Amino acid sequence: MILRELAGRLGLRVIGNDEVAIEGVAPIERAHSNRLTFLANPKYRGQLATTTAAAVVAHADAAAAAPCSVLVSRNPYADFARAAALFEIKPAREPGIHPTAVVDASASVDKSAHVGPMVVIGARSAIGPGSVVGPGCVIGEDCVVGAGCELVARVTLVTRVRLGHRVLIHPGAVLGADGFGLAFDQGAWLKVPQLGGVEVGDDCEIGANTTIDRGALGDTVLEEDVRLDNQIQIAHNVHIGAHTAMAGCSAVAGSARIGRWCLIGGGAGILGHLEVCDKVTITAMSLVTHSIKSPGEYSSGTPLMDNRQWRKSAVRFKQLDELARRGK
Amino acid sequence: MILRELAGRLGLRVIGNDEVAIEGVAPIERAHSNRLTFLANPKYRGQLATTTAAAVVAHADAAAAAPCSVLVSRNPYADFARAAALFEIKPAREPGIHPTAVVDASASVDKSAHVGPMVVIGARSAIGPGSVVGPGCVIGEDCVVGAGCELVARVTLVTRVRLGHRVLIHPGAVLGADGFGLAFDQGAWLKVPQLGGVEVGDDCEIGANTTIDRGALGDTVLEEDVRLDNQIQIAHNVHIGAHTAMAGCSAVAGSARIGRWCLIGGGAGILGHLEVCDKVTITAMSLVTHSIKSPGEYSSGTPLMDNRQWRKSAVRFKQLDELARRGK
Amino acid sequence: MILRELAGRLGLRVIGNDEVAIEGVAPIERAHSNRLTFLANPKYRGQLATTTAAAVVAHADAAAAAPCSVLVSRNPYADFARAAALFEIKPAREPGIHPTAVVDASASVDKSAHVGPMVVIGARSAIGPGSVVGPGCVIGEDCVVGAGCELVARVTLVTRVRLGHRVLIHPGAVLGADGFGLAFDQGAWLKVPQLGGVEVGDDCEIGANTTIDRGALGDTVLEEDVRLDNQIQIAHNVHIGAHTAMAGCSAVAGSARIGRWCLIGGGAGILGHLEVCDKVTITAMSLVTHSIKSPGEYSSGTPLMDNRQWRKSAVRFKQLDELARRGK
Repeated sequence: MILRELAGRLGLRVIGNDEVAIEGVAPIERAHSNRLTFLANPKYRGQLATTTAAAVVAHADAAAAAPCSVLVSRNPYADFARAAALFEIKPAREPGIHPTAVVDASASVDKSAHVGPMVVIGARSAIGPGSVVGPGCVIGEDCVVGAGCELVARVTLVTRVRLGHRVLIHPGAVLGADGFGLAFDQGAWLKVPQLGGVEVGDDCEIGANTTIDRGALGDTVLEEDVRLDNQIQIAHNVHIGAHTAMAGCSAVAGSARIGRWCLIGGGAGILGHLEVCDKVTITAMSLVTHSIKSPGEYSSGTPLMDNRQWRKSAVRFKQLDELARRGK
Repeated sequence: MILRELAGRLGLRVIGNDEVAIEGVAPIERAHSNRLTFLANPKYRGQLATTTAAAVVAHADAAAAAPCSVLVSRNPYADFARAAALFEIKPAREPGIHPTAVVDASASVDKSAHVGPMVVIGARSAIGPGSVVGPGCVIGEDCVVGAGCELVARVTLVTRVRLGHRVLIHPGAVLGADGFGLAFDQGAWLKVPQLGGVEVGDDCEIGANTTIDRGALGDTVLEEDVRLDNQIQIAHNVHIGAHTAMAGCSAVAGSARIGRWCLIGGGAGILGHLEVCDKVTITAMSLVTHSIKSPGEYSSGTPLMDNRQWRKSAVRFKQLDELARRGK
Repeated sequence: MILRELAGRLGLRVIGNDEVAIEGVAPIERAHSNRLTFLANPKYRGQLATTTAAAVVAHADAAAAAPCSVLVSRNPYADFARAAALFEIKPAREPGIHPTAVVDASASVDKSAHVGPMVVIGARSAIGPGSVVGPGCVIGEDCVVGAGCELVARVTLVTRVRLGHRVLIHPGAVLGADGFGLAFDQGAWLKVPQLGGVEVGDDCEIGANTTIDRGALGDTVLEEDVRLDNQIQIAHNVHIGAHTAMAGCSAVAGSARIGRWCLIGGGAGILGHLEVCDKVTITAMSLVTHSIKSPGEYSSGTPLMDNRQWRKSAVRFKQLDELARRGK
């Protein structure tokens, strides 16, 4: 593809030679001839001078320093993502149901959908137009997969899971399993039936081996454009607002309500029955133990230290109240 | 179902109209006509006055405040769970082996058991009466599934896993994989064979994508009525006492021994080769680094703070020993 | 097997009767007649006097205290592991492709490899000599499985995953799923294509339900002999050096680079875009927030305390900067 054509597709202006051929994308330090790269973070501007890329997506003010053509962008990372998508080779998934798939007679699969090998689809479930249900997926009863979704492989939708459109789910994810509802009675546990479902909005992405339980009475809800990384645990009746992104291994306990445009760091935990307002950032491995009512960044934990030094601080942490009283 | 009939089944007394029809269950704030709800926590008693439910399961002392019929209970949440179970519609799993399942000639499947599509059952394994092995499960060699168990879907029992009766396992769980046994020799790792198995007692529940490794020499053991949420990791040779419940993403390292009636919070970690006595509660994301010999509640970590404030405390944590010495 | 024969196979010297029969292995406290056990940790030497084992693998200096034959070893745990492997009964996996497997016409499977039931192998992927692809595995496009590998069951290799030789992967692991790459643009998320792959060196082991994402532009790399326990999350473009071992539930964020011979404790987290040098130990549930340039042991967190005491320390942690200023 000629750079001019690429620029046209992205709606961007070219500074420099717009006849150069672009055959793929690469990071700035390894972008050889005919590759497109990007510069988003001004901190790395030093790498620009020595790049051997054919072109770079960058802010206008970086153009002068570039030894190659520039695609001028106000959001270079986003425009680079759009460019990269043009060079991505995705395996074709032909419409139709693989002969090894087992589809219940009461289920419906749109003619334009792809159902791969070893897939099982249960009673009253529906697969929408253009959706891909990859190899080994299990879809239980009363589930809905909207249009243009992709369940990559070995995804499980257990019961009453309703996906919007263009939802992408990675292998091993389990949606709609029983929430962890238990009543303690006479020295033992009694299971509380989990009668709700899971509602996933349009354009959500759900990572590998992530689990989202179905609601106990109501539903567990992800609004649109929620992005979940791998191995995240979302308990029953959680509600996550639109455009919130959660990094790997984070977890939300039952009935918590998280706002929109939140960023939850890796391994962070959010306790149940609390509310986090919009635009809250939780740093990695922090634990949210109470509701958050103001946007901002929140943290818990202690800094990494040499183990011997850490042991000394740790011992003092135990004495902290006494030390504080003595200091008064 | 008429309320009187429901009360009879649960062995509860009705205050008010016992002729009202009950068609389902709902949370107190959304329980419209013909729904049964419950009030367990006195904190929410204010919601009782305005509920539009047909009936409520509640303590006797809440009856006067109820605008509807009351099912009098000493444990409203537990009795509500029993009532809800009567309204749960579970997909029928007919006895028999699905034609796509691959069952080893030396395995045995009880006539009343259900083996779903795409299931694989290995040599010398046995499936007990009334058990359900859902779609995509893989059962390896020398495994035993007792009576009335349910492996919902895509569960893996690798080798030498023995389940008691009425064990419920959610999708993606892996029981009986190799423990993480390594010997370091001449600069590299040598695998230590994992020759034991996994023993799971009656009435245990195991969450989605939870992993329980088999023992190195002896067995990994869950006594009866152990309840594990999603994404829990149980290492080899761990022993968990009866009626202990663990919340999502918690983990136990090798050869730890946990007592009965313990409550392990979400994301909590328990190091290996230690003992936790009966009736211990570990709060979320705490790390147990030594044996616990007294029942009670234990915690580690620091509270959530605004990130700028947290940074100041974090810096001081590093200086804590020096600060304490200076304070003397 | 006679002890003399066993000693010969392991290249070890016998002290005592070398005619004794060895029929299996066992831990020292439960090693009855005809069992081989081991003593590696001098702390447990007291157990040696009362063992009823037929023989023990031990250091030379423990021989005098043994009531049985001794296999003299400089690394008793490693030699015990080698001995145990001789007694391990592994299910036979015959070469050939199970009739239920679905193998793309452009994929290649070595004649000596085993492809189990319900396996799916995608376009242009290759399975090497002697490798085992267990039941329910899904291998996508452009993947390579070297020689002598074992994918136990229900393993997913999504796209562009290349395994070296003798790689062992446990059930539920997902390699090569999309990295979590997102660009924020006009209030919503835009997916960044993940065009790289995953490279796994010889002799690596990957635990149950562990996830390793493929690179965004380059590859995610595990050098040889990397050992990953269960439920570990490795993000895109991470590089892990040879002989590093990570315990369960630990996680590494994008583009982090970890050295060789590192030991990462259970539940530990390593943030992205940083470097950890060789021979670093991170204790359980610690968070690495900056690069580490010196070998050693590092920690974060606070010690476990009785919850009431902990609450007092936790409150003081919030005041720590104020307390420190006041102390000056």
